[in-house]
Amino acid sequence: MKILFIQTGGTIDKDYAKVWQAYDFEINTPAVVRILKLASPVIDYKIKSAFKKDSMDITAQDRKRLVSICQKATEDRIVITHGTDTMSKTAEALSLIKDKTIVLTGAARPEHFYDSDAAFNVGVAVGAIQSLQPGIYIAMNGLVSPWQAVKKNPDTGQFTPKA
Amino acid sequence: MKILFIQTGGTIDKDYAKVWQAYDFEINTPAVVRILKLASPVIDYKIKSAFKKDSMDITAQDRKRLVSICQKATEDRIVITHGTDTMSKTAEALSLIKDKTIVLTGAARPEHFYDSDAAFNVGVAVGAIQSLQPGIYIAMNGLVSPWQAVKKNPDTGQFTPKA
Amino acid sequence: MKILFIQTGGTIDKDYAKVWQAYDFEINTPAVVRILKLASPVIDYKIKSAFKKDSMDITAQDRKRLVSICQKATEDRIVITHGTDTMSKTAEALSLIKDKTIVLTGAARPEHFYDSDAAFNVGVAVGAIQSLQPGIYIAMNGLVSPWQAVKKNPDTGQFTPKA
Amino acid sequence: MKILFIQTGGTIDKDYAKVWQAYDFEINTPAVVRILKLASPVIDYKIKSAFKKDSMDITAQDRKRLVSICQKATEDRIVITHGTDTMSKTAEALSLIKDKTIVLTGAARPEHFYDSDAAFNVGVAVGAIQSLQPGIYIAMNGLVSPWQAVKKNPDTGQFTPKA
Repeated sequence: MKILFIQTGGTIDKDYAKVWQAYDFEINTPAVVRILKLASPVIDYKIKSAFKKDSMDITAQDRKRLVSICQKATEDRIVITHGTDTMSKTAEALSLIKDKTIVLTGAARPEHFYDSDAAFNVGVAVGAIQSLQPGIYIAMNGLVSPWQAVKKNPDTGQFTPKA
Repeated sequence: MKILFIQTGGTIDKDYAKVWQAYDFEINTPAVVRILKLASPVIDYKIKSAFKKDSMDITAQDRKRLVSICQKATEDRIVITHGTDTMSKTAEALSLIKDKTIVLTGAARPEHFYDSDAAFNVGVAVGAIQSLQPGIYIAMNGLVSPWQAVKKNPDTGQFTPKA
Repeated sequence: MKILFIQTGGTIDKDYAKVWQAYDFEINTPAVVRILKLASPVIDYKIKSAFKKDSMDITAQDRKRLVSICQKATEDRIVITHGTDTMSKTAEALSLIKDKTIVLTGAARPEHFYDSDAAFNVGVAVGAIQSLQPGIYIAMNGLVSPWQAVKKNPDTGQFTPKA
Repeated sequence: MKILFIQTGGTIDKDYAKVWQAYDFEINTPAVVRILKLASPVIDYKIKSAFKKDSMDITAQDRKRLVSICQKATEDRIVITHGTDTMSKTAEALSLIKDKTIVLTGAARPEHFYDSDAAFNVGVAVGAIQSLQPGIYIAMNGLVSPWQAVKKNPDTGQFTPKA
């Protein structure tokens, strides 16, 4: 079993721009690299970057490309890190893939923050993907769920089960 | 579904003693409390402390008590945080429980360290426990495995699959 | 001796906005509050917020108000946290104050980052202010200097001595 | 002006031992290395290790050697990182040096902890040493003071002014 991690951007990968007179966050190297380094993993894995975007800026074209990357991958277990605002939309686009287990996760606070949820969330995705049946899942706030069963609460930012 | 977290001690929960002329680590409040707080969890859970010991100091009596706590728990999904040196031994003691899903995890470096693997490891356990069949599992170094299938490598400290 | 800390904004105080579909930073509570809490300080101090701005957005009017706050303060030792891009400009505006010791500091990376320089920099300012003569100083990159003697290097972001 | 940093051990430099079946801390590479790296320092400095001991284990012989290192150093500004329990005793031993500015500092919690006071404390020492007259000083809990004027409070662990 080998896990493919795909970076798409989002809060989890935001770093602080160091450029002259710029004062903004920017999406940088995948948080997954740093998180796995601390974990001394024994699992077999590969990390790939699809794009580096705030999830509000992801286009239909981007999603097509992401679906294509997942379809062409030799791995059948894929963890995608993604911004939370359109995570469900990307999950929907991926739902035409029937023979792979794909878990989307992300973070409410950048991995570079000392009070980030990133390492835990990536852990949840990694733990879940090893025993889940093929399908598209969201792993946020400790809950692993088929993508259609949860949605982001606009007030709290949490992914909660649909009523 | 509700998850019961049980603290037994080990590296993951080590804090720094602040007492006069003492210069030692001590096992303090469960790391799980701090890790879940950052994750804004939507899962239902409870945290309980069985004991606070380095895993080399856990006795047969302690293990009996832990088995009893797990048997009497109303929850059938249990994550146990534990020192790594005797994690496999405790898993063996727990293996007489047939109707619950129990995942043991821990850390190579205390959760209080900024370069700890604790949050990721607890995440792996939480992600795995939601879809695993009843049984006793170890979740370390990114790998979730039936307890008999892995052992701690004395040189690297990693839990690797048995040959 | 009492130290007055004044927040003006800048990178040091940047936090991550948690609002719905926003993906930006915001200047939040003073980093000095969190830094001093860890230090268990025995010094006498007060923390005040003048404004919360990126230093590129600070106006002449803002600087006038900051000068006025410093002049009216009963404390004669003042540490100002400030964005780095116009730190020298604010120092110049403050230089009409002749009877107080004022040290400006800030950070290249937000205090919320685990790899921030914020705690060290604020420490340098606190250590310096206790023995410096009245005047306006900049404390960045480990160097404490009269404000006129250093400038920010646009390439490295460091405050280096003027040739 | 060049600053010499000397490691002697103590809480500030404590790391977690990774060896088989060991569950203890050990004094490792100087925290000053990691702290200065984040600060992108423009000051001229050198880091040297005298010994790596809990300060309760420092002998009269060790202190003689430390005094000798300070005397022979070409630098006349020296920051010593040290365990807090016998920091005052070492300061006393150093007090025969009359022509150098020496600041002792340390930490209540190891630099490897995300809630450590180490970076701030080293910052205070670095900020103070640049303008202090020759003498032996302690920089802890935000206060820079001639060594004779403070002592460690056995209840709180803070260095407070003597009555």
